[in-house]
Amino acid sequence: MKEIKIFSPATVANLSCGFDVLGCCLDTVGDEMTIKKNELCELRITKITWQDLPMETNKNVAGVAAKVMLDHLGEKQGFDIEIDKKIRVGSGIGSSAASAAGAVFAINKLLGEPYTAKQLIKFAMAGEQLASGNAHADNVAPALLGGFSLVKSYDPLEVISLPSPGELRMVILHPLIEIKTQDSRAILRQSISLKSAVSQWGNLGALVSALYTNDYDLLGRSLVDGVIEPIRSILIPYFDEIKKVAVENGALGYGISGSGPSVFALCRGDENASRVKNAIGEFYHSTGIEFDLHLSAINTEGVKVL
Amino acid sequence: MKEIKIFSPATVANLSCGFDVLGCCLDTVGDEMTIKKNELCELRITKITWQDLPMETNKNVAGVAAKVMLDHLGEKQGFDIEIDKKIRVGSGIGSSAASAAGAVFAINKLLGEPYTAKQLIKFAMAGEQLASGNAHADNVAPALLGGFSLVKSYDPLEVISLPSPGELRMVILHPLIEIKTQDSRAILRQSISLKSAVSQWGNLGALVSALYTNDYDLLGRSLVDGVIEPIRSILIPYFDEIKKVAVENGALGYGISGSGPSVFALCRGDENASRVKNAIGEFYHSTGIEFDLHLSAINTEGVKVL
Repeated sequence: MKEIKIFSPATVANLSCGFDVLGCCLDTVGDEMTIKKNELCELRITKITWQDLPMETNKNVAGVAAKVMLDHLGEKQGFDIEIDKKIRVGSGIGSSAASAAGAVFAINKLLGEPYTAKQLIKFAMAGEQLASGNAHADNVAPALLGGFSLVKSYDPLEVISLPSPGELRMVILHPLIEIKTQDSRAILRQSISLKSAVSQWGNLGALVSALYTNDYDLLGRSLVDGVIEPIRSILIPYFDEIKKVAVENGALGYGISGSGPSVFALCRGDENASRVKNAIGEFYHSTGIEFDLHLSAINTEGVKVL
Repeated sequence: MKEIKIFSPATVANLSCGFDVLGCCLDTVGDEMTIKKNELCELRITKITWQDLPMETNKNVAGVAAKVMLDHLGEKQGFDIEIDKKIRVGSGIGSSAASAAGAVFAINKLLGEPYTAKQLIKFAMAGEQLASGNAHADNVAPALLGGFSLVKSYDPLEVISLPSPGELRMVILHPLIEIKTQDSRAILRQSISLKSAVSQWGNLGALVSALYTNDYDLLGRSLVDGVIEPIRSILIPYFDEIKKVAVENGALGYGISGSGPSVFALCRGDENASRVKNAIGEFYHSTGIEFDLHLSAINTEGVKVL
């Protein structure tokens, strides 16, 4: 195999109580990437559509992630990476993670899969380091593994795949304002009250339990975040009003996707998700702020060959 | 039914990463209690063996918990409570919780079970409030429900029962020094770093996952506590040395039981647990500090009628 075309999915990280440890994978939003072996023994970014991103390999998240993997493997072959961007940069649904995860997934395939999907996470994290200054795994892990991923620990890196109740749907609203991951990290307080931390890990434990037991209502009640959301939500126009619309229309839960500005409403079933999507769209249209609106099931597979 | 005799179990709360939200129920250590209806329309503590505890109803955790329940029910009947204490006060394995949970469980039975086990938690928490100044649920919940309990939230109170992998065994060492729950709470810092909080909830999520998947090794790796243990372990003589002995003899994990001074080693299977118990006993004998040593399976039933 000399060439491969893949779909590399968008992801929702943090998920309220799961700040920096939890993420899930989307099905209907993602980049398309084509990776070809070249004869130059060189790793190149040869094309990027739609979004304005660096073409220099060492400044591009896909290039950096691929480079770290090839160096680790001691592999001298060259590859051309084309990225047909479909996820907006700075949206908060894992745009950089999709490019980084997609690159290492595709090259790993072309090389006969020397690495497992879990082993690829570490390489893709190098792309996140470049994008945000923080090598976090909560987008690249679900992008590579599919479903819900829990980052148990970073040192050593240990990622656990959690079950995905089949009726879950995500409605994502992306207000077209840009918040850089770096900036939205910078406003966080570096210490938090023990009391709010205890509430957070109680909810996170309940959320994990809910995923194993298909308890949709408990899942919704667990999507509580008293630590990060009160701070970051300030940067998201009409955050509370969207929450009200989502809850009134039957969403299980609601929160910030990644570091924002996208927000997610978790829903049960297509009918509920469509109603929530329509209601949020109608409301946000009235604010005059431009937006993207997505509805997706949970993608349990992760990056896919097209 | 006019009289009931029950076994009210000891419990291990916190469990490392689960500070204030997690606890599990023991099988071989617990108080025995006899509760009888009396004709006096009065709630009385009529007998307490072994430990020196208040006989006045409003100063005794069993009395206070029972009183709150009877008031809530508007019940005027009187009861005599005898407590055959088998759990030492101040041991850190839920001595007060056993008395409080046992009292409400037994009286609820005698009254024809107006409340479910989950509803009894709130009443038993009144006993904890008296004992430690903090109405925590992480001992009374597993004492009443059995197995592992997760306190998702306090307001509203929501407790989730988690599965108990069948081969789990607990070895408990209780150095015979007293640490009051109040004092061991007082030394905790009221704010913690966001980074250590994130590690803690990553581990807690992994621990919950491990209980659902019978992943004993992951369970052991999740018993990490960078928040509370570094502070409280200072109060426990030879904490680190016991850990070394436990781990060298194959324990899955090790930590402080409740607020100490008891420590627990979580083991897989009877053979491993016996080895760990013997090794810890031999080591602690050499320190010259008196101690109790217990080995128990997880009690999945909670308080039991004898």
